[in-house]
Amino acid sequence: MSNKADKLKARLPRGLSDRTAGELRATERMLATIRRVYERYGFEPVETPLIEYTDALGKFLPDQDRPNEGVFSFQDDDEQWLSLRYDLTAPLARYVAENYDRLPKPYRSYRAGWVFRNEKPGPGRFRQFMQFDADTVGASSPAADAEICMMAADTLIELGVPAGQFMVKVNSRRVLDGVMEAASIADAHQRLTVLRAIDKFDRLGIAGVRDLLGAGRKDESGDFTRGAGLTPSQAEIVLSVLADDGGASLGAALARSSTGAAGRDELATIGDLVRAAGYEDRVQIDPTVVRGLEYYTGAVFEAQLTFEVPNERGQPVVFGSVGGGGRYDGLVGRFMKENVPATGFSVGVSRLAAALSAIGKLDMRDAAGPVVVLVMDKARLADYQRMVATLRAAGIPAEMYLGESGMRAQMKYADRRQSPVAVIQGEDEKARGVVQLKDLVEGARIAAGISGHDEYREARPGQVEVAEGQLVAEVRAMLGPKP
Amino acid sequence: MSNKADKLKARLPRGLSDRTAGELRATERMLATIRRVYERYGFEPVETPLIEYTDALGKFLPDQDRPNEGVFSFQDDDEQWLSLRYDLTAPLARYVAENYDRLPKPYRSYRAGWVFRNEKPGPGRFRQFMQFDADTVGASSPAADAEICMMAADTLIELGVPAGQFMVKVNSRRVLDGVMEAASIADAHQRLTVLRAIDKFDRLGIAGVRDLLGAGRKDESGDFTRGAGLTPSQAEIVLSVLADDGGASLGAALARSSTGAAGRDELATIGDLVRAAGYEDRVQIDPTVVRGLEYYTGAVFEAQLTFEVPNERGQPVVFGSVGGGGRYDGLVGRFMKENVPATGFSVGVSRLAAALSAIGKLDMRDAAGPVVVLVMDKARLADYQRMVATLRAAGIPAEMYLGESGMRAQMKYADRRQSPVAVIQGEDEKARGVVQLKDLVEGARIAAGISGHDEYREARPGQVEVAEGQLVAEVRAMLGPKP
Repeated sequence: MSNKADKLKARLPRGLSDRTAGELRATERMLATIRRVYERYGFEPVETPLIEYTDALGKFLPDQDRPNEGVFSFQDDDEQWLSLRYDLTAPLARYVAENYDRLPKPYRSYRAGWVFRNEKPGPGRFRQFMQFDADTVGASSPAADAEICMMAADTLIELGVPAGQFMVKVNSRRVLDGVMEAASIADAHQRLTVLRAIDKFDRLGIAGVRDLLGAGRKDESGDFTRGAGLTPSQAEIVLSVLADDGGASLGAALARSSTGAAGRDELATIGDLVRAAGYEDRVQIDPTVVRGLEYYTGAVFEAQLTFEVPNERGQPVVFGSVGGGGRYDGLVGRFMKENVPATGFSVGVSRLAAALSAIGKLDMRDAAGPVVVLVMDKARLADYQRMVATLRAAGIPAEMYLGESGMRAQMKYADRRQSPVAVIQGEDEKARGVVQLKDLVEGARIAAGISGHDEYREARPGQVEVAEGQLVAEVRAMLGPKP
Repeated sequence: MSNKADKLKARLPRGLSDRTAGELRATERMLATIRRVYERYGFEPVETPLIEYTDALGKFLPDQDRPNEGVFSFQDDDEQWLSLRYDLTAPLARYVAENYDRLPKPYRSYRAGWVFRNEKPGPGRFRQFMQFDADTVGASSPAADAEICMMAADTLIELGVPAGQFMVKVNSRRVLDGVMEAASIADAHQRLTVLRAIDKFDRLGIAGVRDLLGAGRKDESGDFTRGAGLTPSQAEIVLSVLADDGGASLGAALARSSTGAAGRDELATIGDLVRAAGYEDRVQIDPTVVRGLEYYTGAVFEAQLTFEVPNERGQPVVFGSVGGGGRYDGLVGRFMKENVPATGFSVGVSRLAAALSAIGKLDMRDAAGPVVVLVMDKARLADYQRMVATLRAAGIPAEMYLGESGMRAQMKYADRRQSPVAVIQGEDEKARGVVQLKDLVEGARIAAGISGHDEYREARPGQVEVAEGQLVAEVRAMLGPKP
């Protein structure tokens, strides 16, 4: 098809990855658990395509300074601009607006799906990754926010993260806006820089945030990040968000802003509902939570795992965020005359799988491989094929070896497929109307030198000869009860 | 967020579609059945990302005359050209080449995934659609082709399409190449035009194909399609493929070409294996099958549903193809020093769902909606929330109404959610420590005027008052045994 001089290199672009059987099965089990919790909360599935009109998605990505940065965009054959979705929220807003009249209100829905970011990939940063979202559209009540936070907590518990090992943290953008109002910070870009600075509190501490609120900060590598340029007194008002004084200075700042007071009341209501439901050890108000996306208008949430895992250098670090979300009351309204309140939560599926794997809660059980029928005589393919068909008809995964190699390679193939049993019928067996069944599970055990299974081993020798007519019954006996 | 003058229109680009709960659940059940059959055949899941390097995908789409036509392509932040995959075969070839050493050979795998075509959408033509593929890579044996065809047949049977209502048709590109060799057609573009002409036999009949092999054909609308420009004697040799003479003239043509003879032998072996396995009523050799994709090198398959459905004008038409595939021995080799034979089959998931729906075999059962707890007193959200939590803890899908409307609208909401039970506790009920449970399934039955359920109706009145502590037990009794 092409000559050897110009062979293509088989390689995946950076930031993308293939998924093999074990990963797919483990992820599918995890998604099934999330789905079960969400359905128990009355959410129903809906999915949108991966492509939308570029303008329908809007420009709400965090940390993107150039327009359209971060998004994969292209023109269709009619020269209209399309983009791959960068999250599942903007497409849901489009869907709700397009189908508003026929949806129940409030509209509770969930979906898992791929999203794309056109940015430099790095460790743990992918250009295609999966999110699992749940949203309540058409409810302005803080009860909707509280419910979504409790659902996130239930999901983590059901996935095997124990209470005490995670916290769903809740804040309100209105609190942050109120503090900025109190500090007379009006410029949109300056506000964004302030939010990003607060967002770095966990990593940089209060001194680092103070630098970023002021002139800027030089990090260990000598790189300089320009600050928000606040005056010292403005910065002190902002820093009330991080103050460790039981909310006293924050309360004082919020009292100076009607937005801030509304945010404070919103959080108080959410806190009351959470306590009434007995979730106060799993869902907590935390005024330092920011969330990067620009479309949030009220409550914001973040699910943080508090246990430690080793980082690349082997040092223990807190695992951190596996998902978040918030209230985005303006997003559906971009398309509609009326305003439509909405709130939602998004799980980072790979991050969550990595977290569950770290605490041994990702179910990585692999399916057993198929029974492999060896090809001892190429003229008798049809006979081997029939044996395979008999096994399959009995519901036993089975296959005939389809390669060109000899018996040794065929046995090696069966091992690589994690086949539990190999079926062998050469000339001699054929003449006698029998087949050999080789127990590869037991064989592997013997090969690995595992002892102490004497009784078991005697009861199940590595290889048995059985009559052709007994094939299914004997294979089934070898497979034993399903684990 | 934007003023009303410049509201965006909420609309999906043409050729894309949203999927609602019922569709998602029906499709998921269908995919689970396919997965079960494929695993029984010893195939294991593997998935690749939706984006690949443009050059890794190659240009194999049918009916595309301009390069890159039909594919969505874009540059990443490093200015490298990427594309959305247009099928699942080209990415699998890249995957196998990239991971060749650590894969078992032959390598049997399956995957369902979205693919994209940048073309004018039309009825039944989408720009994003799902395919479900299975492939055996590293096996040159016709037994691999035969197996995949029988697996396709088993899949259709298991999905509910009865034998006699479908046929998996098998041909070989080598037969078609042999005929062209016999007719001395060497030019690549002319060969492609010939293949396209044969592919239209079902629709145009032999006279139409003859026109397309010669100067061209004018259709009913007056549009002229340019033909392959064969001489009449060349055309007659090609038409031997369609001759209704028991293979006599085709046999004569193939005898003049070594490629053709190889194709004939290949088909004979596949036919023998199919007969030996007793699949001859479901898998048949048919020299008119072409398949559009350019990468096929040997056997080609097409699964055709033979029952009739009404078309847009209400006329009965044969349903036709729901999937196909073939042998693509050159595709992995684009990346590697050695040649790697491969064969596979791809199901068009939406087409298949439409087919199953047409014969009443698509399982559209909807999940029951959640129990809805009405909000009779907004000051008591925490109490209603607790009831919901109790129901959920018992595994019963439940939610509190989160909107702002009164009781009438709340009941209407519960109906739209297909809620089986509404839970009501006003001031009076609260004072007496009871709740009202409204049976909405029974209520709907009464409202619809369905009679003849007298006994049932007496046993299950539309509304009951129960003690708060009996909430779970009584709701469970109302839900009855799961269907």
